[in-house]
Amino acid sequence: MTLKIAHLGPTGTYTEAAALTYTETELSGADFCLQPYPSIAQTLKALASGEVGLAIVPVENSIEGSVTMTSDTIWQLAATIQIQQAIVLPIHHALISVATDLSKIEMVYSHPQALSQCQEWLQQHLPQAARISENSTTAALSTLATLPHAAAISSVRAANLYNLPVLAQPINDRPDNQTKFWAISLQPTLTGNCTSVAFSLRSNTPGGLMAALGFFANRGLNLSRIESRPSKRSLGEYLFFIDIETDINNCRQLKSALADLDAYAETVKNFGSYRTIIIEPT
Amino acid sequence: MTLKIAHLGPTGTYTEAAALTYTETELSGADFCLQPYPSIAQTLKALASGEVGLAIVPVENSIEGSVTMTSDTIWQLAATIQIQQAIVLPIHHALISVATDLSKIEMVYSHPQALSQCQEWLQQHLPQAARISENSTTAALSTLATLPHAAAISSVRAANLYNLPVLAQPINDRPDNQTKFWAISLQPTLTGNCTSVAFSLRSNTPGGLMAALGFFANRGLNLSRIESRPSKRSLGEYLFFIDIETDINNCRQLKSALADLDAYAETVKNFGSYRTIIIEPT
Repeated sequence: MTLKIAHLGPTGTYTEAAALTYTETELSGADFCLQPYPSIAQTLKALASGEVGLAIVPVENSIEGSVTMTSDTIWQLAATIQIQQAIVLPIHHALISVATDLSKIEMVYSHPQALSQCQEWLQQHLPQAARISENSTTAALSTLATLPHAAAISSVRAANLYNLPVLAQPINDRPDNQTKFWAISLQPTLTGNCTSVAFSLRSNTPGGLMAALGFFANRGLNLSRIESRPSKRSLGEYLFFIDIETDINNCRQLKSALADLDAYAETVKNFGSYRTIIIEPT
Repeated sequence: MTLKIAHLGPTGTYTEAAALTYTETELSGADFCLQPYPSIAQTLKALASGEVGLAIVPVENSIEGSVTMTSDTIWQLAATIQIQQAIVLPIHHALISVATDLSKIEMVYSHPQALSQCQEWLQQHLPQAARISENSTTAALSTLATLPHAAAISSVRAANLYNLPVLAQPINDRPDNQTKFWAISLQPTLTGNCTSVAFSLRSNTPGGLMAALGFFANRGLNLSRIESRPSKRSLGEYLFFIDIETDINNCRQLKSALADLDAYAETVKNFGSYRTIIIEPT
């Protein structure tokens, strides 16, 4: 049976590149097809509804931080997604445009994360250009050939796919720019060296966060990441997304810490344990 | 001497409204003038360079979370800013335009946080309009009267200041939308019930975050907020911004926890202790 893989589209996104990396390393020989969706939320909902068997979404960038749309959506889904793999890609942004020089460009289209990752370059080279937020880095590419005063920030790979010229690259403010993606499904995960969990606390629990983190600390379990997101109920009330370092020697401690967290927290979602593929810059 | 107060401008921003709230409650009778700056970074740099004596910046929204530009900039400043007060305002967004109806609008200008806080409304009512990121909610208002196919997301107060019509309001996706601002200076802070600190850890410190948080937990000190930001050195390396609940009974414990943190962390910035003014929705 063909595995349908949803990813943030349209074709040419960094997320699609992450999906291709995943299929090359994990699905060799298997039958699959990539299905682009116009937003991160729609990509995740396609997985939750069973339209596809796997979804690839961006999670975190080394310069701009969390992709909050991903955290917020996976928390809201009724199904608890299961992370099969993390994929880390180097990110080299290019300015794509049919304009003959920078002085002609009045607007720059991209995903807000990419606009932020190039903000110093834009401030220096295109201070007057409007920055237009799109759902992805490639959303504007299909019409860009008809817009002589517009540019988009995406990859050289995307420029080639759409047969568009690259006016400048790399334009990210820091050369060591990386993004982490998750390959997720609704199937139980295999094991790996990282376990991701999200939880909310009951309102007005004094010391609640420290108590929750204590379940891990007291068992010698280390957190490699903690992200707070607003509960959207009231200011100062959060959801927490944590990554716990996991190995064969701490499985029992992890299981008992998660049991304590389950009993203490309002809601806990365990996204499973997984490994990370890191693609080094070439 | 006149106190110069920098805030994110141009005139009419929610940050200016927070500045006015601060001056009414804290500076009654004192001589002051408000000075708008075109970006959060420039507002903070004006304080650091001594151009102004106080700066007001947005910190966190109840729906969209941290204003990452604020966290990233205050970490990078050579001077350690001191928080004098937090101000929490209710946020009611309005769609401002000279267009006679929604069908004419092709582009919507605002700060990325405001665009995100209205994303469902925009998706429902203006799915085809381009969303244009500006440095503030009011940056586009001075030219909006000449743009019959454009709209901006800002406050009714801003619409009145620029003599522009409101086409729809409130348009924020959740009615209980609040933003927290900080009034900051370089002078030592007074006391208050919240202490804010940021720190980075030495690379490759296993269990580093839990050890750092343990200095507070072991002394019964509660954290009301924890925010991670990328160190921008490598993926998975973070800075942490924490708010610690503070009262007259735990001053000694707090002081000793901060001394432990100072000895353990790579860099610690203590932004001081302060109170919060909360303005209820009318």
